Amino acid sequence: MELSVQIKDHLEGAIKGEVKMTRADGRKDNDQLREINITRDFTKYAEGSVLIETGDTKVICNASVEDGVPYFLRGKNQGWVTAEYAMLPRATESRNVRESSKRKLSSRTQEIRRLIGRSLRSIIDLDVLGEKTIWIDCDVIQADGGTRTASITGAFVALIDALNYMLDKGLIDKMPIDEFVAAVSVGIVEEDLLLDLCYDEDSNAQVDLNLVMTENEEIIEIQGTGEESPFSQEQLTELLELGTKGIKELIKIQKEALGGKET
Amino acid sequence: MELSVQIKDHLEGAIKGEVKMTRADGRKDNDQLREINITRDFTKYAEGSVLIETGDTKVICNASVEDGVPYFLRGKNQGWVTAEYAMLPRATESRNVRESSKRKLSSRTQEIRRLIGRSLRSIIDLDVLGEKTIWIDCDVIQADGGTRTASITGAFVALIDALNYMLDKGLIDKMPIDEFVAAVSVGIVEEDLLLDLCYDEDSNAQVDLNLVMTENEEIIEIQGTGEESPFSQEQLTELLELGTKGIKELIKIQKEALGGKET
Amino acid sequence: MELSVQIKDHLEGAIKGEVKMTRADGRKDNDQLREINITRDFTKYAEGSVLIETGDTKVICNASVEDGVPYFLRGKNQGWVTAEYAMLPRATESRNVRESSKRKLSSRTQEIRRLIGRSLRSIIDLDVLGEKTIWIDCDVIQADGGTRTASITGAFVALIDALNYMLDKGLIDKMPIDEFVAAVSVGIVEEDLLLDLCYDEDSNAQVDLNLVMTENEEIIEIQGTGEESPFSQEQLTELLELGTKGIKELIKIQKEALGGKET
Amino acid sequence: MELSVQIKDHLEGAIKGEVKMTRADGRKDNDQLREINITRDFTKYAEGSVLIETGDTKVICNASVEDGVPYFLRGKNQGWVTAEYAMLPRATESRNVRESSKRKLSSRTQEIRRLIGRSLRSIIDLDVLGEKTIWIDCDVIQADGGTRTASITGAFVALIDALNYMLDKGLIDKMPIDEFVAAVSVGIVEEDLLLDLCYDEDSNAQVDLNLVMTENEEIIEIQGTGEESPFSQEQLTELLELGTKGIKELIKIQKEALGGKET
Amino acid sequence: MELSVQIKDHLEGAIKGEVKMTRADGRKDNDQLREINITRDFTKYAEGSVLIETGDTKVICNASVEDGVPYFLRGKNQGWVTAEYAMLPRATESRNVRESSKRKLSSRTQEIRRLIGRSLRSIIDLDVLGEKTIWIDCDVIQADGGTRTASITGAFVALIDALNYMLDKGLIDKMPIDEFVAAVSVGIVEEDLLLDLCYDEDSNAQVDLNLVMTENEEIIEIQGTGEESPFSQEQLTELLELGTKGIKELIKIQKEALGGKET
Amino acid sequence: MELSVQIKDHLEGAIKGEVKMTRADGRKDNDQLREINITRDFTKYAEGSVLIETGDTKVICNASVEDGVPYFLRGKNQGWVTAEYAMLPRATESRNVRESSKRKLSSRTQEIRRLIGRSLRSIIDLDVLGEKTIWIDCDVIQADGGTRTASITGAFVALIDALNYMLDKGLIDKMPIDEFVAAVSVGIVEEDLLLDLCYDEDSNAQVDLNLVMTENEEIIEIQGTGEESPFSQEQLTELLELGTKGIKELIKIQKEALGGKET
Repeated sequence: MELSVQIKDHLEGAIKGEVKMTRADGRKDNDQLREINITRDFTKYAEGSVLIETGDTKVICNASVEDGVPYFLRGKNQGWVTAEYAMLPRATESRNVRESSKRKLSSRTQEIRRLIGRSLRSIIDLDVLGEKTIWIDCDVIQADGGTRTASITGAFVALIDALNYMLDKGLIDKMPIDEFVAAVSVGIVEEDLLLDLCYDEDSNAQVDLNLVMTENEEIIEIQGTGEESPFSQEQLTELLELGTKGIKELIKIQKEALGGKET
Repeated sequence: MELSVQIKDHLEGAIKGEVKMTRADGRKDNDQLREINITRDFTKYAEGSVLIETGDTKVICNASVEDGVPYFLRGKNQGWVTAEYAMLPRATESRNVRESSKRKLSSRTQEIRRLIGRSLRSIIDLDVLGEKTIWIDCDVIQADGGTRTASITGAFVALIDALNYMLDKGLIDKMPIDEFVAAVSVGIVEEDLLLDLCYDEDSNAQVDLNLVMTENEEIIEIQGTGEESPFSQEQLTELLELGTKGIKELIKIQKEALGGKET
Repeated sequence: MELSVQIKDHLEGAIKGEVKMTRADGRKDNDQLREINITRDFTKYAEGSVLIETGDTKVICNASVEDGVPYFLRGKNQGWVTAEYAMLPRATESRNVRESSKRKLSSRTQEIRRLIGRSLRSIIDLDVLGEKTIWIDCDVIQADGGTRTASITGAFVALIDALNYMLDKGLIDKMPIDEFVAAVSVGIVEEDLLLDLCYDEDSNAQVDLNLVMTENEEIIEIQGTGEESPFSQEQLTELLELGTKGIKELIKIQKEALGGKET
Repeated sequence: MELSVQIKDHLEGAIKGEVKMTRADGRKDNDQLREINITRDFTKYAEGSVLIETGDTKVICNASVEDGVPYFLRGKNQGWVTAEYAMLPRATESRNVRESSKRKLSSRTQEIRRLIGRSLRSIIDLDVLGEKTIWIDCDVIQADGGTRTASITGAFVALIDALNYMLDKGLIDKMPIDEFVAAVSVGIVEEDLLLDLCYDEDSNAQVDLNLVMTENEEIIEIQGTGEESPFSQEQLTELLELGTKGIKELIKIQKEALGGKET
Repeated sequence: MELSVQIKDHLEGAIKGEVKMTRADGRKDNDQLREINITRDFTKYAEGSVLIETGDTKVICNASVEDGVPYFLRGKNQGWVTAEYAMLPRATESRNVRESSKRKLSSRTQEIRRLIGRSLRSIIDLDVLGEKTIWIDCDVIQADGGTRTASITGAFVALIDALNYMLDKGLIDKMPIDEFVAAVSVGIVEEDLLLDLCYDEDSNAQVDLNLVMTENEEIIEIQGTGEESPFSQEQLTELLELGTKGIKELIKIQKEALGGKET
Repeated sequence: MELSVQIKDHLEGAIKGEVKMTRADGRKDNDQLREINITRDFTKYAEGSVLIETGDTKVICNASVEDGVPYFLRGKNQGWVTAEYAMLPRATESRNVRESSKRKLSSRTQEIRRLIGRSLRSIIDLDVLGEKTIWIDCDVIQADGGTRTASITGAFVALIDALNYMLDKGLIDKMPIDEFVAAVSVGIVEEDLLLDLCYDEDSNAQVDLNLVMTENEEIIEIQGTGEESPFSQEQLTELLELGTKGIKELIKIQKEALGGKET
């Protein structure tokens, strides 16, 4: 049935003069997310521990609660959320040298760390935390595009679990978050506007845009690059629309994963 | 005199139902750029050397032509453009530790380096360069906000000078750029949408957005962050409009600085 | 039921004049391994990819085949096997700073890397490989003691899978390994000789000994330390016996995991 | 006109039995300094900020006042003066790799930093400063020889400005310096003894000597190297004489730059 | 004379049906140590300073007493013993790059540091030291195999001297050590079991085992590696026996060197 | 006896109207060198290996001959001489952190390395060496002032031995050095001009001057610093005279050490 509908769609497209191609990883539609799975309590020590799978991209997101805050916040009676991001050497098609062996972090790694941290800090009331730091560790064990957006979407769930742990232990007296947050990539590949790019799509994209958004459709972060060539403001508007659709679906999946344990 | 005119403007605004506040650095209008000066041939060795001043922000942008390309391009008969960015220790209100003394680059520095490089590469035809690398060095000698956008705007002019040098020397046989590029920041400060934020404005901004754009009003890079709180898609549209206005003015200034020596 | 059997065992021990204590993680016997699970093809890109779980210790062991060898082997027409080892920051009870962020590897990490590499190289005929390197990446996602021995036991299976891949692709013309290898820890905790120490046991051990052994009961590596106090040669003999028992069981589990795809 | 005078000088020299050669950068006399310009208040944040130009060598010298002293002086109720020195990547004919990118300082850079710091500390009464540190940042934006001596000469002026700032703010109660200090290079190039070597001269010098001296003609630092071949004690005496002449002229220029604001 | 005795020994061996080969450095017997010299008070500043020579291997072992302990011991009123190990660049046949120039320690260096530290800590009562650290610096000035074991044997003597210094100064009130410790290597080279391998033997060894042992023949550390091929448990037993013989002789030499100043 | 002679000297001095004080390390005269010992063939692998002792300062100077030259000399058919310098951690009164552990070289270490290298290069004909590098390693095992000058004086002898080795092996066809070189420190301590300062004198010196000189009394390097206060040109002349006297004595000792094996 599903298949025949797909063929029919193609035929209709062909009739209208456009041939709709299946996407690089077999998805049918340009506005379709990959299959998303969120596994909570993935490891046993972290206060929040999530494995997020978006297609073949798999990221472990651990949230750790620690006493104390960075030096620039000391004595201000507020908390901090910070993120780290890394890939296993063989998360990708060919093996990468470990950043610990190179004794430096790539600038890509550092940009992603900053993006995850900023995104989560923008929707949390740090005053509620007291002088605590929540470390978000996103470790990619398999990478097929969209690792930074999957990290944010998964890290949000781990953060909620860590905050619920803090509530349970009396470390905080209320939930300091009142909006869900998720992230998704959109892009333009051979003139098609695509939602949630897999690696093959991403590496051929003329335009690549990452969007971090709240459940109220407000923008936390927008990062768009005309990798190959500039893009128009109209294209930006369409990409935003596509991304907004994806974010809404992702937040629905986050809510299901969290069950009753929502914010 | 100046002052009384300003007061009169305010009064007129008030009469029309709007109270216009003077901006942090004394500019009258929210959609006003700071004073921009572009000095070419600022130092004598670099193939392109520009001092750009946007208000109190001052950046030396040197473009250096070198033989060879990074290892990942060798043998492909194309060139490369890459950028570095740094601040003098006392470019800012209080002194910063030198990154060479810390023996690491901050992630902020690395993000800006990548942004400048990406922006310039996106509008140049690297095949024309042959196996040459153009290094763009942006060194901030005084910082009052907007150093990354000033770097891009100034670096573009230095790049054109370096390319003209290459044309003169017969190192390339045509100009590999056909569009001007400039960059500007826009942001939301206490509900006002402002163009070209100075440091005081930037550090109080709820939303901070950097825009790199061509003279045809196409986007090369958009990076927007809701530092304090998320922002709506309507606000994004208005910010884009404001930024587009600034870019057009900046490109006009670049063209004047280059005189007849345009692309 | 299970519980009552356990109590009965204890009573029987008590009647026979010995009081048998349950081990720190609830195991009944001092010569008992933890539950071992070996999952092959755990990630999709690596030529060999294994998740090994020994109780709560979980390690991803990826084997990657690369062209070329380190400089000291070039032109000698032989291959190389080398290993890296790391822990996720929250693999443990409290979070550790990432080694990539510290920009140095701890000496513990380096010792373990060298141990894994040496152990696998000692049973492989490097001449068969030609000028290829097999990288073994052991990434601990959860640590409850015995991570280095679990890494070796799991890495051996990943190595076999990578070698079978090479055989299939015609990269090698015969299997260069003819003996199975596994590793296990033994130790003395409050005068008890224990097999396969969990973290609680390990941190209280007077003597800690890691054993890497072939299926023919030959020693590849023995590393014993009287952490708290020296130990006698008789104790060494007993510990070796206990370790040998564990190794035999581990190799049986490796063989089951590999099914017919053995060496 | 200028040219004909120059030729006349040469002719007169020839008539007197000596053929006087013009120097590499066109200066007429071996004992002639290059044109020196000292611009105060070059940047707006530093307590003292000087641009010194000696011919084509251009150095920004910023003096920053900070609370506190290095750990080895804590509790001794005295201050500290320390210096850093760096070059922009394209300060020279060909581009140099940034020291921040190499993650190490060259030994040349470190030697110059130590020399500048020692020179300024030797004529200041550190007890007057209290527990304050004055950082001297010398950043070379264009290099044509003599960057270290230009740095010292310019840094002295920036230091005086910073000390006057401290006096004005009541941070110190008297000027802790009572002698001017300047620095100059002298050298032997093809048997000629030259004052204030430009890069072309410096790179051909058999003997290179840097001199830091007070207005009372006392030596703070003398560093002489027979780069190509040893030199006699008589030559040393002549070089000292030549350097002393240059120092006196430089101190005159420093005093003019400082106007009435002297020590 | 010496030579003819040696030949006679060989002939006797041959007559008895065994052909005894001279060892790589001319030693007659497989169970023979090299000539050992221990010079105390080798340098003048260290509280304990020993030059140990075992054949052509020469190591300076300095023990330094410092106030304070590492952060993980603070406030526990106990001391610490830690070790560092390094080689002069030309301690070996060909020159090695300095680890300070490479800006990293090799993993071999770090393993040896940890081994020396662990070995000495295991026989000292750290509570007696109070909050003092004893640094053991082992610097190899000439290396002909067995540098890590020579370091331990020599460092033990330096440690005793430093402890006697502490006793004399009243820094401790009793000797915190009651057993001697020494270390030796044993190995299998072309089927021969050898004691105290020189470099030529070591680089040809199939099995290499380092043994750290007390005078009561208890094991502090055993590290055995089948470099080329695994070894049997019977071989391990024989190697241990050989090592035990060597340790006993070494402890006798340590005691002679210390004269009446024993523990 | 010794003592009474010394007192008599003082009395005679006092009678003549000058009170001569004994120096910090017991030397009688201000123009007296410490006792110098030069031991050749100190270690067995280096082509030249010297232990130089000047009073309590002891430095191992090894010269190693290697194929190849640094990249900037490749293909120019000339050789290179370069030097490294380091101290054992406990060469001094209190222990220093190892530079390999700090993962950086102090600027003092780097200055001394450059000084030793420059000094030796200035008197050697690098063309004779062909594409060979001679590494000079100066490792201070005990430091009582004057380690850099002792390093140069000892390194010169090691260099001669390495060059004689090269001559013997036919690696060079003539001795590329025709003048001896030595180095010494002079300084002003409490108004006294002293030759060859020991540590106590050096740390109290107002003026500290290092002199590297040939046997023909020509200057290779002069480095003088008014640590506490500037010094006059007359004092410089006197210090040079004192240093020249010391250099002549040192070269005599070098010649004796080398016996007939001179340049």
